[in-house]
Amino acid sequence: MRVLAISGSLRAASINSALLRTAARLAPPGIEVTLTSVVGELPLFNPDLELCLPSSVTQFRAEVAAADALLIASPEYAHGVTGTIKNAFDWLVSFEAFVNKPVAVLNASPRAHHADSALRETLKTMSAVIVEGASVSIPLLGENITEARMTELPSIAHTIRDSFAALYSVVVLQRPERNTAFPVDPR
Amino acid sequence: MRVLAISGSLRAASINSALLRTAARLAPPGIEVTLTSVVGELPLFNPDLELCLPSSVTQFRAEVAAADALLIASPEYAHGVTGTIKNAFDWLVSFEAFVNKPVAVLNASPRAHHADSALRETLKTMSAVIVEGASVSIPLLGENITEARMTELPSIAHTIRDSFAALYSVVVLQRPERNTAFPVDPR
Repeated sequence: MRVLAISGSLRAASINSALLRTAARLAPPGIEVTLTSVVGELPLFNPDLELCLPSSVTQFRAEVAAADALLIASPEYAHGVTGTIKNAFDWLVSFEAFVNKPVAVLNASPRAHHADSALRETLKTMSAVIVEGASVSIPLLGENITEARMTELPSIAHTIRDSFAALYSVVVLQRPERNTAFPVDPR
Repeated sequence: MRVLAISGSLRAASINSALLRTAARLAPPGIEVTLTSVVGELPLFNPDLELCLPSSVTQFRAEVAAADALLIASPEYAHGVTGTIKNAFDWLVSFEAFVNKPVAVLNASPRAHHADSALRETLKTMSAVIVEGASVSIPLLGENITEARMTELPSIAHTIRDSFAALYSVVVLQRPERNTAFPVDPR
């Protein structure tokens, strides 16, 4: 299972990006997580550019198309989504390969609910499949926790592994081709 | 009164930008409306850039600081704000000159309420003063109306003039310096 991780923050020390890198490290065998770096290079969305797409947009869409699922972690800025994460999804509106894409939305700051709700509303509107069992809260904001410590903490590792299990269940075990007489274990 | 108009769409044929240009044309004497073009040149928000700000950010902040009020019109993309408008405001979070700034939010598509609500929530969180009497709905989406026709239509002209009157009332007539023995008409 190939998972594309998308951070909604461009800050080098972003706790959300750190969480996604931690998730990539903790991913069990058979699950490959890649944190995309192209989101920060996307131009601001402009439908007039559709006729001559910037290479960053083409690359981002190709990464999304190639992924079996998306894993998102994004901060809340001023009670809203970050412009960065919304801009990335603006480029995926009406992109065919995004429709029915399984998505897990991590929330590193459970007290912040505006951005989380708004992001889910947008994803649903764009016909993504939000995998609720994989969309977990991992309270990190204000913890000043290092990435190494994040990986070591049993509670975080446990929650992330549960998230992957739920995502795997939806993406792999419930694939249409599994409903055959001879299901193949994709691992 | 100097009003900075901000469109949340970069599309050349944007109905929201057209509405703001129309508003600029219909502004009564004493009200100067400028549609900013720098929003589309802003980089995606990254707090790491604060130490060496791109010139577009400096220019945008200077335009905001110089304005007595903001006039915003922005479309809804996938039940959310546009990445472009949120990115612009991400650059104004904690910007001192934005605090207590009177803001009018036009809505060209009253059936779309997600983006309008989310934008207002963000503006309030950033301590803007949303001028309700100036924040009017002007149903235009799907009308395929030209800018020239927009300016001519009495209903639109009427609504826009009401909006400016409400904005003027808050910005100019309620200014602290008006509460003197010798108020000066700023026109």
